[in-house]
Amino acid sequence: MFILYFAPHTCSLASHIALEEAGADYEIRLIDFNVREQQSSDYLEINPKARVPALKTPQGVLTETPALLAYIAQRFPEAGLAPRDDAFAFAEMQAFNSYLCSTLHIAHAHRMRGYRWADDPAAIAAMQKKVPDAVSACYALIERQLLRGPWVMGARYTVADPYLFTIAQWLEDDGVDPDLIPRVIEHRSRMSERETVKKAIADEQAA
Amino acid sequence: MFILYFAPHTCSLASHIALEEAGADYEIRLIDFNVREQQSSDYLEINPKARVPALKTPQGVLTETPALLAYIAQRFPEAGLAPRDDAFAFAEMQAFNSYLCSTLHIAHAHRMRGYRWADDPAAIAAMQKKVPDAVSACYALIERQLLRGPWVMGARYTVADPYLFTIAQWLEDDGVDPDLIPRVIEHRSRMSERETVKKAIADEQAA
Repeated sequence: MFILYFAPHTCSLASHIALEEAGADYEIRLIDFNVREQQSSDYLEINPKARVPALKTPQGVLTETPALLAYIAQRFPEAGLAPRDDAFAFAEMQAFNSYLCSTLHIAHAHRMRGYRWADDPAAIAAMQKKVPDAVSACYALIERQLLRGPWVMGARYTVADPYLFTIAQWLEDDGVDPDLIPRVIEHRSRMSERETVKKAIADEQAA
Repeated sequence: MFILYFAPHTCSLASHIALEEAGADYEIRLIDFNVREQQSSDYLEINPKARVPALKTPQGVLTETPALLAYIAQRFPEAGLAPRDDAFAFAEMQAFNSYLCSTLHIAHAHRMRGYRWADDPAAIAAMQKKVPDAVSACYALIERQLLRGPWVMGARYTVADPYLFTIAQWLEDDGVDPDLIPRVIEHRSRMSERETVKKAIADEQAA
């Protein structure tokens, strides 16, 4: 049994979809950011980083979306969610996920979480102002080169797909023009039709 | 034959050390940031992200340090640079590397690369001002909980070690007090005594 600690509208949805696709035996637990539950002593014992997602496994707790996604794919190999026995193809998938985590998600985070990197309200406002440009530049690269189609890595569906889908939920609010990235939008639509994705989103809304 | 595109004093050193530890057949190629070579058309063909590291392999080019490190460990299994056949232990190592990439390195990057996230010079200065706090908080977590000792993952040396060592080169310049993180400093010292590390650094200086 796995327990996924999640918050709605965050990147934890990617791991949630991956668990669903893997056919894992899991439960979800809401961490309520509205009451800063991620800072509670109970949650800090689970994840001292005070963030989501965190995945409680029989062997211990894991954090960081790229690590969780690869773990779910490797732990449930029969689901075929990552290339196996091909270090290069696996690394290509990991590189995509790492880019989402450390470049695209970070560009996005300057809209809502600027306080992580500056205290001055004017500086935080200046960060917010640049978010559309910074995030759009990431999507332009994905549209042009990284997204192979129909899935991120090409013919094969992998855990990179729920990750891109999850982050692509935020692009309109980040000020990205969807008309400039039709392949990303088409990928998002295709993902939203999967039963696993519908179920994960419905379960988060009901939690 | 592998080719590692690197720049001195950047995170590419981590992959360089890992290649050396793996006993790989590789060459290094300097990308000169002083003349913005990372933006040159030749380099953009190799890595459209305009960053280092990039690793040219017989199968194609890989980017993103956490992906490269895992690739090197998996491609050269006899070097024992990552847990094999244990998805949980592998994910723990990947989670550490992902934290360095997307939290610690990002906190550091606001000192020199603030232009990525704001245009206003006052905002960029405000980001620089917060770097000591933001980076110190990351090292406090590593010191207290993530670094098991003697190596990052405990008794076993992995590719997480050259990555922490590489990023720890910058901590004094980031305004972190080394006296508060003795275990990180001891790890850095232990790493600096390895012949592989000495050779990688010397080869970068000579390039």
